[in-house]
Amino acid sequence: MNGAQSLVQTLINGGVEICFANPGTSEMHFVGALDQNPGMRAVLGLFEGVVTGAADGYARMAGKPAATLLHLGPGLGNGLANLHNARKAASPVVNIIGDHATVHQPYDAPLTSDVVAFAQPVSHWVHCSRNARDVAADAARAIQAAKAAPGQIASLILPADTAWNEAERAYPALPVHGPAEVGALAIRQSVAALRGGRVTFLLRGDALRGRGLAAAGRIAAATGARLVCDTFAPRIERGAGRPIVERLPYRPTPAIEFLRGTETLILVGTQAPVAFFAYPGLPSELTPPGCTPLVLAQPHEDGASALEAVAEAIGATQAMVAAKLRRPEAPLGDTVLTNEAIMRIVGQFMPEETIISDESLTAGFPFYRLLDEAPPCDYLQLSGGSIGNGIPMATGAAIACPDRQVLSLQGDGSAMYTVQALWTQARERLNVVTVIYANRAYAVLREELASVGAVEGEKAFSLLELKNPSLDWVQLANGMGVEAVRVDTCRGMAAAFQAGMKATGPFLIEALV
Amino acid sequence: MNGAQSLVQTLINGGVEICFANPGTSEMHFVGALDQNPGMRAVLGLFEGVVTGAADGYARMAGKPAATLLHLGPGLGNGLANLHNARKAASPVVNIIGDHATVHQPYDAPLTSDVVAFAQPVSHWVHCSRNARDVAADAARAIQAAKAAPGQIASLILPADTAWNEAERAYPALPVHGPAEVGALAIRQSVAALRGGRVTFLLRGDALRGRGLAAAGRIAAATGARLVCDTFAPRIERGAGRPIVERLPYRPTPAIEFLRGTETLILVGTQAPVAFFAYPGLPSELTPPGCTPLVLAQPHEDGASALEAVAEAIGATQAMVAAKLRRPEAPLGDTVLTNEAIMRIVGQFMPEETIISDESLTAGFPFYRLLDEAPPCDYLQLSGGSIGNGIPMATGAAIACPDRQVLSLQGDGSAMYTVQALWTQARERLNVVTVIYANRAYAVLREELASVGAVEGEKAFSLLELKNPSLDWVQLANGMGVEAVRVDTCRGMAAAFQAGMKATGPFLIEALV
Repeated sequence: MNGAQSLVQTLINGGVEICFANPGTSEMHFVGALDQNPGMRAVLGLFEGVVTGAADGYARMAGKPAATLLHLGPGLGNGLANLHNARKAASPVVNIIGDHATVHQPYDAPLTSDVVAFAQPVSHWVHCSRNARDVAADAARAIQAAKAAPGQIASLILPADTAWNEAERAYPALPVHGPAEVGALAIRQSVAALRGGRVTFLLRGDALRGRGLAAAGRIAAATGARLVCDTFAPRIERGAGRPIVERLPYRPTPAIEFLRGTETLILVGTQAPVAFFAYPGLPSELTPPGCTPLVLAQPHEDGASALEAVAEAIGATQAMVAAKLRRPEAPLGDTVLTNEAIMRIVGQFMPEETIISDESLTAGFPFYRLLDEAPPCDYLQLSGGSIGNGIPMATGAAIACPDRQVLSLQGDGSAMYTVQALWTQARERLNVVTVIYANRAYAVLREELASVGAVEGEKAFSLLELKNPSLDWVQLANGMGVEAVRVDTCRGMAAAFQAGMKATGPFLIEALV
Repeated sequence: MNGAQSLVQTLINGGVEICFANPGTSEMHFVGALDQNPGMRAVLGLFEGVVTGAADGYARMAGKPAATLLHLGPGLGNGLANLHNARKAASPVVNIIGDHATVHQPYDAPLTSDVVAFAQPVSHWVHCSRNARDVAADAARAIQAAKAAPGQIASLILPADTAWNEAERAYPALPVHGPAEVGALAIRQSVAALRGGRVTFLLRGDALRGRGLAAAGRIAAATGARLVCDTFAPRIERGAGRPIVERLPYRPTPAIEFLRGTETLILVGTQAPVAFFAYPGLPSELTPPGCTPLVLAQPHEDGASALEAVAEAIGATQAMVAAKLRRPEAPLGDTVLTNEAIMRIVGQFMPEETIISDESLTAGFPFYRLLDEAPPCDYLQLSGGSIGNGIPMATGAAIACPDRQVLSLQGDGSAMYTVQALWTQARERLNVVTVIYANRAYAVLREELASVGAVEGEKAFSLLELKNPSLDWVQLANGMGVEAVRVDTCRGMAAAFQAGMKATGPFLIEALV
């Protein structure tokens, strides 16, 4: 058994059964070991940002890490943006990064770089194995680190000779440090706040799913407390049968206004709200004056159980406030397509248990609530703010949940960063429908240019628009083996969307808005 | 004048007149300042790897830095791979990286990251401004650092408030530390070696162009010394009228064999040769037994003047050995297209002073010498080994040299990493012809999988091939506004290549091989 073989078996022992890969020469023994071991599925991405974004989407839906296989410092570099997003989403990921053989590292060959330094800005845990016999134990520790609550990025750097030299055996799974129990004091403080005044819960992580969300719903029903989530929560269970959780507005002034009147802001799995960006003269902190933030559960703590304990303490044992199924009305005629119409058509026709990867940004944001009473779905968002997350995330989610429909709501500007993910969708025949909001601009930046008060001339505008030439998304998708259509009316969108939902394999809709 | 305006004028004062940009919210004041100042041309890339790769290509041909404009840590992350390549090519680049406003940084907003840590692995110089009044002086120092011989990566991180707050004035250009003079001892040692035995020159940097290359050619004519360059030199002047410089083979065993018989290996602007990758049982150092490396000029030293001094000392004042113009014979019939036929057709029809960006890897490598006697051209290669350099590099070279034809020889696997550069070529109407060698595989990795002795099963092979589905390069190019054709015969290739050379604006040929 060589080091690479000990690695692959150790990953499998630790419950890692998918490897999103973009390998190079220094990873060839790992590729060989993947080949030999039927317990590991390997999924090729044609760019590393696809690989890391897919690992993020997989982790959000599977609740456990995939491995990535990346080539040296620059290959990791290409994957950093989506690892940043995964880090902010608290998605567990195990990165396996090849490096030059230890004996080769002093020679400054063309691809020599400081791989540890590349890994550090996005990793909670970084280690470089120095010996093939250490690889299995190091990999077991990497898995343990990735699974530590609430989910971490673990980067294991493996020089090529640690792959090809002899190792002894694989390592078993190490114990996982699950979420910490919330102390009695925090629960008592929350109970007191609920009895004393107007409370808003700000929820994230497990508090937005399953029993955590149900407990929050019971508390809301019993006390009238508001349920709110971060503007870009990593994953939310939405739709019929779930409590409606309001979304914090994106911009500072509306966000502060939105929270005004709250006396206590109870934080579950998140931090007190802050602005996405700073603006001249506007505050960074969004907690309004007179409102006290109170931490019920930190991100590494068991927010779901804490909410259940609070619900029990206040006697909130009755039914939760839950949405009834009421699909939005949708325009279906030969009328011009709008961002609102797209979301209405989505709500009208999407099946139950759809997984929605939303990177529609300015296009979809104002119409988010149209899905409040749609069929139950999982909603995944760009939690780290680095665009180019959506298509890979949809890809990884579809690998994690092969029996569910995935829907990728995607701005055209952000789609271009990791457009190569469409090819992986085609190769793996994933049931992903991608809707490109083709507004042919970095629309959010136009708003930003105005809101920072910067000059708005022709040259500045040309840096923010995707025209001259316009992108042709049907050709781009077809070029990667994905069926696609272009629509510019509501009737066309509705027909295309229904066709996409029925299709086997990926489908892309270029929606001209 | 705000900080952003002081920055842009300082860049212009320092001779930086192109900004390759992929901006975000934190850079909006810089976008505004670019807009106001006619001395700076802004070129949009739809992905940061396009931006940094274009800056590399621009620097190689313009001999001076462009600026990049990048959005926070993750945006820089997307540009790191091509900054790695630029660093290894000694290309000067000034990165301007926006960050959150200083007051906003403690709040851990979604896009908060350690931008300095992102920059360090690829940068010779990193600095973060803390005050709008410092920006101009910091930018002047960044330009100075980038221009220091032989060319460096300078990364200046500018929090958003350093852009929007008041500054006083722009800064003038600072003196540049050009190449250091080579000492008399090194020149005497080289002269002695030339008189004493069989000498091979290993050349890089200025020694592969202009008067440096001419001096090397005179020395070769006078002494019979061999002229050799690194396997992947950043830039070489090749073709008729220039000395033929042999290229060091890629793999270790042939490289050592190639150099065998050399008694002294004189290094000019490069290091003693090392293997690209390590392989079990093969050496990293390629200098053969019995051969002494001798440093005539280090990369930061004036190799061209040192070669002239050596030539003068040995009386090599006569004509250099230079290639005569003799275009390769090319197959032009309805025969099946091969990698060799492509290079012959290129040599047959390319105009004088073509700039060739070669990322054809396995496809083009064996036929490199077919252009030894082609019309004079500049030849740019993947010096840092991180694939995804070629199309952006061609883009930047075309911006630097608008009157010259650019030819991009491109493997299909590596083309996918930064395929978005085609859109920038279309928008800027650049005279770039891209030839995609569509072998539908990471062909180099298939060789590698065999050469490391790893198992070769179906799952491993599927990770190394670009099939199921195949990429359609005509649709991909058309989707980004670039005219394209597919060819699979020599006649078709010859016709397409001639059409591409005549076209105004970019043109892509998908060559099925």
